[in-house]
Amino acid sequence: MRAVSLKSGRIYVREDAPEPQPGFGEVLVQVKACGICGSDLHFAKHGAQMLRVAKEMRGLPPVSVAEELDLDRDVYMGHEFSAEVLEAGPDTETLPAGTLVTALPVLLTMSGVKPIVYSNETPGGYGERMLLSAPLLLEIPNGLDPRHAALTEPMAVGLHAVNKSGIGPADGALVLGCGPVGLAVIAALRLRGIETIVATDLSPTRRSLAATMGATEVVDPAAEPAFDAWQRAGGGRPLVCFEAIGVPGIIDSVLRDAPHSTRLVVVGVCMEADHLTPFFGISKELNVQFCLGYDPMEFAATLRSIAEGDLDVAPLITGEVDLDGVAGAFDALANPDQHCKILVTP
Amino acid sequence: MRAVSLKSGRIYVREDAPEPQPGFGEVLVQVKACGICGSDLHFAKHGAQMLRVAKEMRGLPPVSVAEELDLDRDVYMGHEFSAEVLEAGPDTETLPAGTLVTALPVLLTMSGVKPIVYSNETPGGYGERMLLSAPLLLEIPNGLDPRHAALTEPMAVGLHAVNKSGIGPADGALVLGCGPVGLAVIAALRLRGIETIVATDLSPTRRSLAATMGATEVVDPAAEPAFDAWQRAGGGRPLVCFEAIGVPGIIDSVLRDAPHSTRLVVVGVCMEADHLTPFFGISKELNVQFCLGYDPMEFAATLRSIAEGDLDVAPLITGEVDLDGVAGAFDALANPDQHCKILVTP
Repeated sequence: MRAVSLKSGRIYVREDAPEPQPGFGEVLVQVKACGICGSDLHFAKHGAQMLRVAKEMRGLPPVSVAEELDLDRDVYMGHEFSAEVLEAGPDTETLPAGTLVTALPVLLTMSGVKPIVYSNETPGGYGERMLLSAPLLLEIPNGLDPRHAALTEPMAVGLHAVNKSGIGPADGALVLGCGPVGLAVIAALRLRGIETIVATDLSPTRRSLAATMGATEVVDPAAEPAFDAWQRAGGGRPLVCFEAIGVPGIIDSVLRDAPHSTRLVVVGVCMEADHLTPFFGISKELNVQFCLGYDPMEFAATLRSIAEGDLDVAPLITGEVDLDGVAGAFDALANPDQHCKILVTP
Repeated sequence: MRAVSLKSGRIYVREDAPEPQPGFGEVLVQVKACGICGSDLHFAKHGAQMLRVAKEMRGLPPVSVAEELDLDRDVYMGHEFSAEVLEAGPDTETLPAGTLVTALPVLLTMSGVKPIVYSNETPGGYGERMLLSAPLLLEIPNGLDPRHAALTEPMAVGLHAVNKSGIGPADGALVLGCGPVGLAVIAALRLRGIETIVATDLSPTRRSLAATMGATEVVDPAAEPAFDAWQRAGGGRPLVCFEAIGVPGIIDSVLRDAPHSTRLVVVGVCMEADHLTPFFGISKELNVQFCLGYDPMEFAATLRSIAEGDLDVAPLITGEVDLDGVAGAFDALANPDQHCKILVTP
């Protein structure tokens, strides 16, 4: 079958990608839509560095991306998908063929939980068909457009970050960066009822999207520094700052500029080396919460919010490509004023 | 009067230090004992760098150390003191002359709260006499030895870090570094009833002190890496790791090695530039709480714990010098196997 692959740093369509064969507990699905994630862009650029860092790291469960991945073989990506059930593996009960589903992007295997991303083995959402684990399938309810359901995953990242932040009704939020992650955070903050949501981005298009998703104040940080804007618009509330930019230097600049006792939630995924001035954090007793992903409850709750109309993801979708258009879409996403979320519809 | 000063990087006794004159709300006291703090050692070495960093920083109250300090004039230090009341300033009520006291190391002035440390103006505890603010005086109760009362300040740092950490009965603690700060953390954890307190230090003397203060497991990290020791002795509890070393590289190494969801409390005061690998923190959803100081309640509670015998600080005092011995004591404290806390008794 056809599937997009990253091989030795190049994105291309592999015409003879292996046809997935569902085993016990697995379901073969036809991909309906898959969002292109900023992490995939980061990985295409900084994958080798990320693997080096991951190999140094301890304290993770034994099955992790780094140990098995070879960047000079085909690497499959695509973890923001919706799909249609085709057939279940042997002795496996699942939803009827034709059911529209989404799922956490992992496979439950006898050797542990394996990610459906950055894999040499498991084709992801940038292909015609893929495997999912039967127990993880979530039926897309309410006749929801499967292209919208594909945004469950990135929007769940925002919900998880907001849950992790412990933000309460008396707090205000400052969201740095209004790419898909920042916008997901803004949407989750709005659903949580947070009254003051200041959002910053250099791109006018993204600032406009931030307002659409629920930011109460949008700021061009080239015109007004982010924390000046917060001082002006934050109403003296305790601050929870969400860093959704994910490039080196951002964390230290937040520590330098943030008010005393600020809680910083790092939700941008920086894969590069960075610098730190501990004295900034110490002097102001700052807190830094690093975040990744979401849990199954958050994923399901996000799908429900989208299907019930509480969370309108339509404005985030700014493009749609087929498999042949993925390489070009990766390039186009480098320009934040042109695109937010591009869906691959194989 | 005589007072120790740091001038252009050199510690010396200034024979003609200005005799403090108590103003309204102030009390002149005779210093009984003053502990030499690791921060003062750091400052003597890295003061210029600390001031540079402090000047870059925003989000602090307007009155801060950096704006006024000149390292080429006399800089007074000494903030872990006990003292005897001599006389109050005009129109100021205070405790009777002869009362033994300690206090938060700050002066309340009409232009704000000023630190009694790293000051060109205010002599600190490394001198014969100093000024304190009348409303902040705490009488030393129970006939407590004023040399022990001088340890209120560093021990309060430990209590504050433990309070900030939010550690609960189901959690375990790993304390990296058993200098005075790490030992204060260990003592506060023991008072809190934490059952598993693993402590690491390269120095056998300090490991022995750690056990005395309440560590349930002491580890030489040269023989067994800290997080290996935690895996062995932590009993699978959620981990709160206290970093009390305060040198570049420690924070990133904790992020690299700590288990998923570890909460890192940074209580060591690193004044130098440092490096960071955000991906370590992101991958394991780590939390970093930077800490500094204590609040007045924590300070008073610590004095009470010492005076009531719940907290025995005697083992921490490994030396006593007069003003002429301070420069030598700064040098001696660089060897962690020789000393823990040296008191200056002017």
